[in-house]
Amino acid sequence: MIRAGIVGGTGYTGVELLRLLINHPNVEIAAITSRTEVGTAVSELFPNLRGHLELHFTEPEPTHLADECDVVFFATPHGVAMDMVPALLARDTRVIDLSADFRLSDPVVWERWYGRPHAAPNLLAEAVYGLPEINREAIRQARLVACPGCYPTAVQLGFLPLLEQQLVDPGRLIADAKSGVSGAGRKASLGTLLCEASENFKAYGVSGHRHLPEIIQGLHQVSQTPVGLTFVPHLIPMIRGIHATLYAQLQQETDLQAVYEQRYATAPFVDVLPPGSQPETRSVRGSNMCRLAVHRPSAGNTVIVLSVTDNLVKGASGQAVQNMNLMFGQEETCGLTSIAVIP
Amino acid sequence: MIRAGIVGGTGYTGVELLRLLINHPNVEIAAITSRTEVGTAVSELFPNLRGHLELHFTEPEPTHLADECDVVFFATPHGVAMDMVPALLARDTRVIDLSADFRLSDPVVWERWYGRPHAAPNLLAEAVYGLPEINREAIRQARLVACPGCYPTAVQLGFLPLLEQQLVDPGRLIADAKSGVSGAGRKASLGTLLCEASENFKAYGVSGHRHLPEIIQGLHQVSQTPVGLTFVPHLIPMIRGIHATLYAQLQQETDLQAVYEQRYATAPFVDVLPPGSQPETRSVRGSNMCRLAVHRPSAGNTVIVLSVTDNLVKGASGQAVQNMNLMFGQEETCGLTSIAVIP
Amino acid sequence: MIRAGIVGGTGYTGVELLRLLINHPNVEIAAITSRTEVGTAVSELFPNLRGHLELHFTEPEPTHLADECDVVFFATPHGVAMDMVPALLARDTRVIDLSADFRLSDPVVWERWYGRPHAAPNLLAEAVYGLPEINREAIRQARLVACPGCYPTAVQLGFLPLLEQQLVDPGRLIADAKSGVSGAGRKASLGTLLCEASENFKAYGVSGHRHLPEIIQGLHQVSQTPVGLTFVPHLIPMIRGIHATLYAQLQQETDLQAVYEQRYATAPFVDVLPPGSQPETRSVRGSNMCRLAVHRPSAGNTVIVLSVTDNLVKGASGQAVQNMNLMFGQEETCGLTSIAVIP
Amino acid sequence: MIRAGIVGGTGYTGVELLRLLINHPNVEIAAITSRTEVGTAVSELFPNLRGHLELHFTEPEPTHLADECDVVFFATPHGVAMDMVPALLARDTRVIDLSADFRLSDPVVWERWYGRPHAAPNLLAEAVYGLPEINREAIRQARLVACPGCYPTAVQLGFLPLLEQQLVDPGRLIADAKSGVSGAGRKASLGTLLCEASENFKAYGVSGHRHLPEIIQGLHQVSQTPVGLTFVPHLIPMIRGIHATLYAQLQQETDLQAVYEQRYATAPFVDVLPPGSQPETRSVRGSNMCRLAVHRPSAGNTVIVLSVTDNLVKGASGQAVQNMNLMFGQEETCGLTSIAVIP
Repeated sequence: MIRAGIVGGTGYTGVELLRLLINHPNVEIAAITSRTEVGTAVSELFPNLRGHLELHFTEPEPTHLADECDVVFFATPHGVAMDMVPALLARDTRVIDLSADFRLSDPVVWERWYGRPHAAPNLLAEAVYGLPEINREAIRQARLVACPGCYPTAVQLGFLPLLEQQLVDPGRLIADAKSGVSGAGRKASLGTLLCEASENFKAYGVSGHRHLPEIIQGLHQVSQTPVGLTFVPHLIPMIRGIHATLYAQLQQETDLQAVYEQRYATAPFVDVLPPGSQPETRSVRGSNMCRLAVHRPSAGNTVIVLSVTDNLVKGASGQAVQNMNLMFGQEETCGLTSIAVIP
Repeated sequence: MIRAGIVGGTGYTGVELLRLLINHPNVEIAAITSRTEVGTAVSELFPNLRGHLELHFTEPEPTHLADECDVVFFATPHGVAMDMVPALLARDTRVIDLSADFRLSDPVVWERWYGRPHAAPNLLAEAVYGLPEINREAIRQARLVACPGCYPTAVQLGFLPLLEQQLVDPGRLIADAKSGVSGAGRKASLGTLLCEASENFKAYGVSGHRHLPEIIQGLHQVSQTPVGLTFVPHLIPMIRGIHATLYAQLQQETDLQAVYEQRYATAPFVDVLPPGSQPETRSVRGSNMCRLAVHRPSAGNTVIVLSVTDNLVKGASGQAVQNMNLMFGQEETCGLTSIAVIP
Repeated sequence: MIRAGIVGGTGYTGVELLRLLINHPNVEIAAITSRTEVGTAVSELFPNLRGHLELHFTEPEPTHLADECDVVFFATPHGVAMDMVPALLARDTRVIDLSADFRLSDPVVWERWYGRPHAAPNLLAEAVYGLPEINREAIRQARLVACPGCYPTAVQLGFLPLLEQQLVDPGRLIADAKSGVSGAGRKASLGTLLCEASENFKAYGVSGHRHLPEIIQGLHQVSQTPVGLTFVPHLIPMIRGIHATLYAQLQQETDLQAVYEQRYATAPFVDVLPPGSQPETRSVRGSNMCRLAVHRPSAGNTVIVLSVTDNLVKGASGQAVQNMNLMFGQEETCGLTSIAVIP
Repeated sequence: MIRAGIVGGTGYTGVELLRLLINHPNVEIAAITSRTEVGTAVSELFPNLRGHLELHFTEPEPTHLADECDVVFFATPHGVAMDMVPALLARDTRVIDLSADFRLSDPVVWERWYGRPHAAPNLLAEAVYGLPEINREAIRQARLVACPGCYPTAVQLGFLPLLEQQLVDPGRLIADAKSGVSGAGRKASLGTLLCEASENFKAYGVSGHRHLPEIIQGLHQVSQTPVGLTFVPHLIPMIRGIHATLYAQLQQETDLQAVYEQRYATAPFVDVLPPGSQPETRSVRGSNMCRLAVHRPSAGNTVIVLSVTDNLVKGASGQAVQNMNLMFGQEETCGLTSIAVIP
């Protein structure tokens, strides 16, 4: 059994990790921490877990976590993991960080977007970017995995086949992305109240969103040439789901459908839909799947890729478990086969 | 022109008051206050008001308000109005309080439910309970009107005809009430996040809700005998609307439909629906109407009354304007004729 | 492996059965029928099933079904099962009917509420009412199980402990019940459009709902005395979930919490919450659990029971699988342990 | 008083026209037709209108309509107006068509997109495209106005200033548009059920949507050069509102904010927001306003315009009333000043 710990278990990615790990046949949840809820039964905060988990929240203490856990997940706000990770690695406990702390390889870029110096810059080179569809082998060997953000997962999986094969102009990419409200996390705030966010739709972060440098870094790595990306996120009046509508300009003829199907033939969690499809976010709600469709209207030069994920699963906790499976020699899909709940 | 001021203009009842008063032909909005938003343009906070209102938020200062206003509305949390009202009345400015400060006539009961001593107990006797369907004449003369709560409005309008005529057992009343989330106000809190409150339904306050003593006080006044009421509020995953499902035990035969139609024949904002109707909350969304239907399944002893209102209009700001119209010799419906927006 | 067939697989209870049976370790889905979708791949209609199920819809033909299946589930509108069940039973295929055809033991009552004569009245005596919390042993032996309706499940589980022990007046029961829109099924209709049913709340069926005689039959069976029930269903603007708020009049003193905990101590899918709890529908979304809380405000005579289920799981397809487990000697919880998805 | 008739009054644009015209001081609603609801009181179908309108639905009969009405609105599915309009115009009744019948000036293009020959091609040249922000003067003189579609309104108002002044490359425009479900109309269909469309987001019509040729025709008219537009509509899980996110490539330097503010300085229903704004659809819900914001991230070459409208108001019925005001010498804003309902 893999002994797993979760730091920051009171947020949405935390409770989603619990749901997935409880059903994982080879994982034992050894510890779950929360500074604010020490001593509270987890099932008191999340009644869906009553009868499934007997754990109580504890203080996040690296030494204890290292003793009790083979792997620690950080489901914390940005800036927490980078303080605790060195102590865990030093004690041979592996780390899967769902926050942004180790996603950007350049500490200068990190500081610009996150507004403070990075606390563990020397670990940035070692951290493996946890998108298995690119880094599967590196993840298997990693001590420290930085799980991609929710938008970056949906956008990169959509653009990858086009950029890897230089099929489109990398300088003129557009990602019009839409996310359910759970992407904002479980914290009291005016903007995500039901009365503010339901029956409403809006863009945000148009002048610059923290996921932009992460996406550009990832796309640049596969395209080998500078990437120009316009990224506009929007808030959908619903709980879960990301829909990325991607636009690119073709620069050579090809069979796009075949390119996508071949690229993801061995990826268990990327489903390339038949030609003409328009994926729905609910088709992946609660599941680790990313569903893609590629379009070329009127056989013109504009390629449109539609990419849907559940921001809390493939966009966060599910991908974290997928990474764990790879790191610990498990079947990649282990514990991740549940079906999206429809309706 | 009636010069109106609003204290506490940043909440949902505040912005709803603005929407109604801007459209009122005989009102000029003279001042709107907010401690936290002093200097901010109102239309910056509420973009729906762009082009309709040029005002900025100011400090709530009773002397200035009294100078500038004929009437001041309090759209504040409980406990604010009772501190400021005496100064306003002393300067001959009339007050319409949308909070709970002057709803309960007994300061001991008030203290028990609101957890602190009442600051102006000597005004409780003077305050008129602002339910025009009971107190129309008293409201016309009032200096200080206490607007009913949202649940109390829907529940009392539903039960009144039955209790006034002693048609049902007053000791065995049940009000199963449901409210949209806007009833909780515009403040950051976990429980009213879209991710917590949408796709979800639950009861709350089963062991005792502050609207219970208010409803009992009101029903007792008309029934003349002690009232026994079981009141269970629930949270509906939507923004606006209250639906009260009321149960009572008949104790004499009567034509219930006729009783209701006669009782409300001259009430411009109570609409008794035809027999067999089942009113929808959306039929009153954004409007000051209360729609009622009375049922007696299988001609048995149980009377069921269905009562719907918009909690922010007839349950708060619309009723406040209705009271203002009465206090200032306006047509009762003035500024309140807008139609519910469907769909 | 249990070979299972589904008649009427294009509705919401059908797709939910698929989701549950695909994950059941000891079930093989042998056939799924739909008159209107013969030849269509199931995963084309329900893209959440892509990669999980290769089946196509076939014609509903009893002889073939009997050959291929050990058990056939009917997820059909009322009136379909009663025509096909005799042929299946004659060929030793067992039947679990999710429709209303075999729920009422009296064919006269059935005809009154469903508007046509019953096609297989001689089977009504044999059919076992599939509420395991009452009929567990009978279900184990049954050839034909009639799964309870969604409201009847939530309401009966809530009232049972009170009526079995004669703790309340059986003549004065009130069930104020609320359901998500999926209870209306997957069929095009004006009333359940998003634009009609969202941001809206209303009662329906106040003068008489088909679940009323079913609930009364079930409660009468345990109370041994005539039952008087007022039942008002309402439509909640959300997809899944039932919340029943039940009112009864105590007629003897008792420790209500203990009564409930003892009654359901061995029921794996009924969770009695701690005193003071107010269960949320989302805590059971996608799961087979019913969560209950019992209240007695101000230690008065009115008992309030709050009961939540997922109408498509414990209220339909999950309960059907629970029945199948009992009928085929499986662990009662087999395939039914998935956790509610929150948020 | 302007005597107005509505053909096809049972849909969402019909009921919205009623809401607006009832509040219009100089309009009398003379007739409202529906083949399927002849004799039904309008307020029975739309309970929000109880007390506001006494009309019943009648047969759509051109001679009667011409006698009773100065203007007839068509709130019908495509293909109805073109059959009836000639008879109305022949009797000097003016027509405002909310359907697509007279939007495209080329009958060949119309036939290609709507799948049948146009029934009144000789009127296409006379019909004035009812976007007042372009055609204000022509509308004043028009006998027949073709109201723009909902997407075309939001998209054209967003692109117009850029194209009129040749600021961007007209061959590389992208409109990523999102609409609430009411855009699909009030008709029973699976795809717009609450259980299908809520908690879900998807693109549709990616390979070609009927609004595409309409938008291209309109943009071409102002740009004077061929327009290349990629248009992807999406369905938002809410009732009302359109959000268009527009992308274009700058081809000359300019002060974009000033361009927009000047272009719409005299347009009463286009509100250019301050720099950096991100308009919300709810800020125009129920109102005839279009709110725009223009962005140029990182001072690059990509211009982003955000444009929001209420698809049933500025995108349909409100714009129709705006056109009527112009045609009948009314103040352009008459009857259209109601404020968006927030929350």
